Amino acid sequence: MVLVRFFPKEFSFFDVFDEHVGLAVEASQLFRELVERSAVDEIALARMQSIEHSADETTHMLIDQLNKTFITPFDREDIYSLAKELDDIVDTLTTIVNRMRVYRLAGPNKNLIEFSLVIDESIRAVASAVKGLRHMKNRKAITKCCVEVNTLENVGDSMRDKVLAELFETESNPINVIKWKEIYENAENVLDICEDVANVVESIVVKQA
Amino acid sequence: MVLVRFFPKEFSFFDVFDEHVGLAVEASQLFRELVERSAVDEIALARMQSIEHSADETTHMLIDQLNKTFITPFDREDIYSLAKELDDIVDTLTTIVNRMRVYRLAGPNKNLIEFSLVIDESIRAVASAVKGLRHMKNRKAITKCCVEVNTLENVGDSMRDKVLAELFETESNPINVIKWKEIYENAENVLDICEDVANVVESIVVKQA
Amino acid sequence: MVLVRFFPKEFSFFDVFDEHVGLAVEASQLFRELVERSAVDEIALARMQSIEHSADETTHMLIDQLNKTFITPFDREDIYSLAKELDDIVDTLTTIVNRMRVYRLAGPNKNLIEFSLVIDESIRAVASAVKGLRHMKNRKAITKCCVEVNTLENVGDSMRDKVLAELFETESNPINVIKWKEIYENAENVLDICEDVANVVESIVVKQA
Repeated sequence: MVLVRFFPKEFSFFDVFDEHVGLAVEASQLFRELVERSAVDEIALARMQSIEHSADETTHMLIDQLNKTFITPFDREDIYSLAKELDDIVDTLTTIVNRMRVYRLAGPNKNLIEFSLVIDESIRAVASAVKGLRHMKNRKAITKCCVEVNTLENVGDSMRDKVLAELFETESNPINVIKWKEIYENAENVLDICEDVANVVESIVVKQA
Repeated sequence: MVLVRFFPKEFSFFDVFDEHVGLAVEASQLFRELVERSAVDEIALARMQSIEHSADETTHMLIDQLNKTFITPFDREDIYSLAKELDDIVDTLTTIVNRMRVYRLAGPNKNLIEFSLVIDESIRAVASAVKGLRHMKNRKAITKCCVEVNTLENVGDSMRDKVLAELFETESNPINVIKWKEIYENAENVLDICEDVANVVESIVVKQA
Repeated sequence: MVLVRFFPKEFSFFDVFDEHVGLAVEASQLFRELVERSAVDEIALARMQSIEHSADETTHMLIDQLNKTFITPFDREDIYSLAKELDDIVDTLTTIVNRMRVYRLAGPNKNLIEFSLVIDESIRAVASAVKGLRHMKNRKAITKCCVEVNTLENVGDSMRDKVLAELFETESNPINVIKWKEIYENAENVLDICEDVANVVESIVVKQA
């Protein structure tokens, strides 16, 4: 009876995490699509906000379930961190899209397109790592994804340094410097958050060793 | 004997939280008053800093007590989060007032006044929610306050987007853009922190269900 | 047998923390040296990044060990916080040096030199406090260091306010305002992180009382 009671709850954590990373991948795809366009309009922003809203609800559901469950598939604080960081990924992508609209940034910007491709790779690796937690046997595959996320974070750091140096050297309008500095820094920040997720995943794997 | 030893300690957490939210409400009132004035002077800043100092001491006292107490009225990490987030509310209001003085912002600014009213509503709802924790029976009233805080955070998001769009379109002096962008973002951030407090409160209510 | 198994692991936490604060002191010395120069070149940045890399590895090692160890010399979350905050000190110093290079800031800047001296004092006090945890007997000495870190954080706050006010009043080029505002705020932030470390140390001392 106890098994019947607890096991479904344990397994549901994996289901909800799968849904959560699915939303992050969806947000990333939309982000890629939007940065390639000429401008962010109301409809585009609304689509992103709708994904963000679903991710928020998933996070709340996870934390609610966590508060009601005694036995969890891995440490409570790790479940909490995973939920929070995955939510942060979607939030930060939404923030970028929102600011593009608020600042009326026109046009595809080649630097941001490049960032969106690296972000997409990283979020896909994050998704594979998180999904891997369900079947702990393929540790190697999980670790490989986490290493990839770390590598992409370094790539993002270099990109940010390069594009900021370029921005400060070539852009004479300070208002544009303010706008793009913020966009680029937020883009790089998404990769930092992906790295945080990878660190939590690695932690979980180590503890189960 | 055990009861005599533990119960006063438990109850004191509620007393200290009441004091803590009292300071947040006081800071919010002063903030409203200050943003309606023409400029922040030394005396005004000193008043705000004195409230911030009291909130700091209350936070330290709470964490000290937490470290010395075995039985707590709710989860240790929730007590810790509540203390930290309530302190953050007062800190961020103080930061805004301080920057208004450092930047010699001559007021009053109608957007910031509007923010101060929403912030005040939110902090009052936070205060009611936190005070409600003492008598867990009126869950509905607590939840209602938390919902209000969430709604006001959304109101703040829209306000920030609107005033930032306006700022970037109408302000030709980039130095003023830098100053006001920071003030508005900090103002909106206070509402985010209020939402964080509400989330902790909701978490506590769920766990005690 | 149990003693043989556990005790070396406990003691190694202290060894690794000693190494960690040693890296923070090294980063601080290099930072002082660099801000006194005329500009940050590739070699200078690479030296700082090499220290940052070592601090990263030390942090990972600490967290790994934490995840594998049942008995720890003090609360797990405090070990985790200490490792994270010490890493943040080195990260933030590296960020400043990196931005000096990206922004091609030609120095020396007397305000930043002043900051680097206060930061160095604070990091040395942090190092003494953390090293003191090994021999809990000299609580007074540990507390004295923590008080010093708190005082230096206040000094840093005033410095930041003064130099920002000066920057906004005297610098007519908005691009330079953007650059230096960020550098000064990051410098002050190092002192905030030092204070966070001191708070964790004080927490550990209180719990062991």
